[in-house]
Amino acid sequence: AAKGARKMEDYGRFLALMASALLVGFVSVILSLVWVFHYREGLSWDGTAGEFNWHPVLIITGFVFIQGIAIIVYRLPWTWKCSKLLMKFIHAGLNTIAMILAIVSMVAVFDFHNAKHIPNMYSLHSWIGLTAVIFYSLQLFLGFAVFLLPFAPVHLRVALMPIHVYSGLTIFATVIATALMGITEKLIFALKNPAYSASPPEATLVNSLGLLLVIFGSLILWMASRPHWKRPPAENAKILRPIGATAEGTEVESTMINSSNADKSDLRSNTEAARKQNIKFDEAGQRSTM
Amino acid sequence: AAKGARKMEDYGRFLALMASALLVGFVSVILSLVWVFHYREGLSWDGTAGEFNWHPVLIITGFVFIQGIAIIVYRLPWTWKCSKLLMKFIHAGLNTIAMILAIVSMVAVFDFHNAKHIPNMYSLHSWIGLTAVIFYSLQLFLGFAVFLLPFAPVHLRVALMPIHVYSGLTIFATVIATALMGITEKLIFALKNPAYSASPPEATLVNSLGLLLVIFGSLILWMASRPHWKRPPAENAKILRPIGATAEGTEVESTMINSSNADKSDLRSNTEAARKQNIKFDEAGQRSTM
Repeated sequence: AAKGARKMEDYGRFLALMASALLVGFVSVILSLVWVFHYREGLSWDGTAGEFNWHPVLIITGFVFIQGIAIIVYRLPWTWKCSKLLMKFIHAGLNTIAMILAIVSMVAVFDFHNAKHIPNMYSLHSWIGLTAVIFYSLQLFLGFAVFLLPFAPVHLRVALMPIHVYSGLTIFATVIATALMGITEKLIFALKNPAYSASPPEATLVNSLGLLLVIFGSLILWMASRPHWKRPPAENAKILRPIGATAEGTEVESTMINSSNADKSDLRSNTEAARKQNIKFDEAGQRSTM
Repeated sequence: AAKGARKMEDYGRFLALMASALLVGFVSVILSLVWVFHYREGLSWDGTAGEFNWHPVLIITGFVFIQGIAIIVYRLPWTWKCSKLLMKFIHAGLNTIAMILAIVSMVAVFDFHNAKHIPNMYSLHSWIGLTAVIFYSLQLFLGFAVFLLPFAPVHLRVALMPIHVYSGLTIFATVIATALMGITEKLIFALKNPAYSASPPEATLVNSLGLLLVIFGSLILWMASRPHWKRPPAENAKILRPIGATAEGTEVESTMINSSNADKSDLRSNTEAARKQNIKFDEAGQRSTM
């Protein structure tokens, strides 16, 4: 009962953080639209500044907000009754949408630069941004090939999962850092008379947008890195597999890779329960794949 | 023997990453000096650009390089025979040095701005940078009070350790993001004729410096987030403590908080060993504090 109460409290905390992340992400998208429509030239696709403006809007909507949601989608408690395969499709689908929006947003800038005869790829923002898009595409392709298609052997999935998680979070943080550089560049270039240094309302609005992106990133990284908020392992995968069996590439198998014995702190807080569970494992002739 | 070989291989991998991080960090510091002495006005403390130049040099040396080393100092395998208390002093000491250098580097910019009548604190770089310094100082103060001084009860240390680790890594990533914004600003402001967009050698050098900072950060985050590279728990802390005892604030106790049963993958890969270890815990009447 005490454990149940702790779980409920923990569930409530997750929901509060999730609501905060959604709110901060949503407000960020709105602020990017206010920036573009109220202070800048709106949106268009004709080689003018209106085409450039797709860049911040699509990056913040797709490469920050949608990517952030894609990262924590396995952790939404109400999805735990859905099949792992469905959740993988949602994770991969959201990341694909984010990638497409990121690519379109880059095309908008290249188009705008070429129309205005501004050089491409000279800034640190462009160097790191292009690197991030390339790594993101690689990550998506590898993730699809290894974790979604049913061909990769379990030991490969086990070996690559920590790298997949680390790369995903590092790319996400790098994308936010790149957005902050982009904001810095654009405000310096666009604000003349009054200049950025005179802190006109546009500067305050867009600086606030930058702060919100950092807060959004911090919330997602916290939610994504708490072990007790992992999707629980599929129970039958634990119970039914015989000694030494490797059910390669099955849906339940990869669930185990992600999250078997996820609630480490529970295991530790009650050694007696951990011992019993281990004996149960031994009786069932189970060996964890991790 | 197989496990010993795995450990050795793993040790070698850690050393290779550590050597890479030191190299990348060292080259970053050198590049900041080349930037300042070869392309800019060198270093001075007289309200001129030479005083501003302390800002990138001290940030890269202290707030990036030294902070990065401070983060992974517990994981250096040759320090595992040193007392945990000594390692805490080294961790706190390096972070204190980093904080002092960050503050001096901010004073240099404020001094320079005031001498040149340039407004302070208008840019996103300054907003996020100052926030990072404030959070870093809070983190250092709280870490000192809770984990180094012997007064905090064990349950408080247990509750705060994951937050301490998360905050540390998030602040570190934010500091690197802020450095990238600073590089962007400075190159746009300083490069005229040829402009930043004409990619003069200085732009290429400093963009490369920015890329190295991202690589350095990625290496540190990888090393800091692998569970099997954690400092092992003090064995006697496990064996000697009686049932329900809470040895509040002792040195061995806090070692357990950091890393008891750290090698999760080992525990899982050999359920038999885990069961035996748990029985040993029960026999000794031990309860893990986690």
